Amino acid sequence: MKALVFGGPGQRSWDNVDDPGITDPTDVIVKVDTTTICGTDLHILKGDVPAVTEGRILGHEAVGTVVETGAAVTSLKKDDRVLVPAITSCGRCGPCKAGMAAHCEAVGGIGWIFGHLIDGVQAEYARVPFAETSVHLVPEGVSDEQVLFLADILPTGYEIGVQNGRVGPGDTIAVVGAGPVGLAAMMTAAIAGAGRIIAVDMAESRLRHAAASFGATHTVVGGENAEAEIMEITGGAGVDVAMEAVGVPATFDLCTRIVRAGGTVANIGVHGAPTTLHLEELWIKNITITTGLVSGNTIPTLLKLARDGRIEAEKLGTHRFSLGDIEEAYNVFGAAGEHDALKVVIQA
Amino acid sequence: MKALVFGGPGQRSWDNVDDPGITDPTDVIVKVDTTTICGTDLHILKGDVPAVTEGRILGHEAVGTVVETGAAVTSLKKDDRVLVPAITSCGRCGPCKAGMAAHCEAVGGIGWIFGHLIDGVQAEYARVPFAETSVHLVPEGVSDEQVLFLADILPTGYEIGVQNGRVGPGDTIAVVGAGPVGLAAMMTAAIAGAGRIIAVDMAESRLRHAAASFGATHTVVGGENAEAEIMEITGGAGVDVAMEAVGVPATFDLCTRIVRAGGTVANIGVHGAPTTLHLEELWIKNITITTGLVSGNTIPTLLKLARDGRIEAEKLGTHRFSLGDIEEAYNVFGAAGEHDALKVVIQA
Repeated sequence: MKALVFGGPGQRSWDNVDDPGITDPTDVIVKVDTTTICGTDLHILKGDVPAVTEGRILGHEAVGTVVETGAAVTSLKKDDRVLVPAITSCGRCGPCKAGMAAHCEAVGGIGWIFGHLIDGVQAEYARVPFAETSVHLVPEGVSDEQVLFLADILPTGYEIGVQNGRVGPGDTIAVVGAGPVGLAAMMTAAIAGAGRIIAVDMAESRLRHAAASFGATHTVVGGENAEAEIMEITGGAGVDVAMEAVGVPATFDLCTRIVRAGGTVANIGVHGAPTTLHLEELWIKNITITTGLVSGNTIPTLLKLARDGRIEAEKLGTHRFSLGDIEEAYNVFGAAGEHDALKVVIQA
Repeated sequence: MKALVFGGPGQRSWDNVDDPGITDPTDVIVKVDTTTICGTDLHILKGDVPAVTEGRILGHEAVGTVVETGAAVTSLKKDDRVLVPAITSCGRCGPCKAGMAAHCEAVGGIGWIFGHLIDGVQAEYARVPFAETSVHLVPEGVSDEQVLFLADILPTGYEIGVQNGRVGPGDTIAVVGAGPVGLAAMMTAAIAGAGRIIAVDMAESRLRHAAASFGATHTVVGGENAEAEIMEITGGAGVDVAMEAVGVPATFDLCTRIVRAGGTVANIGVHGAPTTLHLEELWIKNITITTGLVSGNTIPTLLKLARDGRIEAEKLGTHRFSLGDIEEAYNVFGAAGEHDALKVVIQA
């Protein structure tokens, strides 16, 4: 088969590789129908994720069709159409039983293994371990594009931004970073009844997307005036929930300055460096700071909302490619700003 | 009357001052029967709390008897015996209605005003503003000593340590810092059903108190081996909840290293400096960090537990003084290590 293979920092290729086969009785093999590229894949290509070794097939988000099932698999069968999420869940370990597949012990303590510790889904076929406890049947009448982003960024925005942030009805929230995950957080904040949604980004084009399609009620250009503008919007009180969706110290620090006493800073961003936490100011403010990797517990809920048209995740897909053109898709996604791209949709 | 008066950094005196009088219709005047000294009072004396001006009467924890009531007061009367807590609550503003008197807007956004922004309770008499929404009637048959520490450190340990930390049945918790507030957190962790309680402190004498009287099941001497010892006690997983009860960067950082994936770091300590937050490691760990000033919502619960002998807060009182000897009480409490002192009990 053909697959997108990591060849070491800066190297990727659409290569011929061996077809995957069942190795464990809980596996299934899926034919990949639709996949996408994540910002994490770009980090891997930069060499920022040393656990990914040369020869690894990338990708951790797909909609596919079951073509083969392992001996222990009873609830999935050939031709089932499934969403393959970023996180693998054994369903049996302590963290999985506690609803935190993000830290599944059976796969090493971090549930994200596709395109990381095992071969991923940017390929014609993929082996899916612990399939019954990991994948989700796609409801009838729902397109691949409607559910593709429920593999990772929608539940990340919802679980790590909205749920960790304890967004409640009428809350004023700020989402700092209006990239795909930040937009997913804005979109899912509606589920929790958020009142005012303030999108913050340096790029005016992203702010336009945020306001036009993702529920932002206010937009603020990032930079030195952002804090003052947000405080003015909130009448000086600060926001109930500040979500960090960039992954750098400056935006995290902004979140801790704009949150009201008693509010929450929900960190969604992937950070590569430490930050300064101003405990000398924050100790008395009754704030909560949360971090997290998605577990995917909310995917069944999001699938129902997608089916019923209450969540239009497909709005994140701005550019379309065929699987054979995945290298071009990488080129566009890697220069998303130039192309006004949010997410790419790649179909077999 | 006589009162303990702040005279600027390093200066205090037991002085003759004017008797307090009713100034607002929601005030009461109490005769102070029993009071204590808080670590915060020592910070004030060092000059660390510039909002406290010369001439201010210190103290924010007392049991007293109502001697006079303002015109608007209907539910308190002369001779009522009341617990005067550290936090003043107007009961009418947004934060008070939301259960967060710590940020009562009527008194300026920080509910701690006694011995800070208004005269305190280390005196023969004190004016208590917003009395009906702030003080608590002391149940019959319960001594002053049994409830005195419910004015501040017991609810601080319970609300800011145990409740913010979301301690649940069977949880393993570490309390880093076994001073009075840390011991109060250990004691109240039992209410939430904590399983194993690991006390961490540099002082062996405090660890002995923790194990003998406050529910610690394990003790660990602070320092370079502490992290390894705690990880060994928890089988390498880390603790469910780590509470910081010191207020310096090193102990906060230790808490972020010993907490398990999915666990909570509850900061109780009062910090005077920023710390480094290792988001490059913590972003993926699904942890929660909380900070806070006590609101006192749990005082009614704690009063019932004290009445029924389920909480023995009086164990924190190791040294007794008469109110006229309060300067000697300050000397002992200010050198608590030398005297093996936890809290002092000062009675009229």
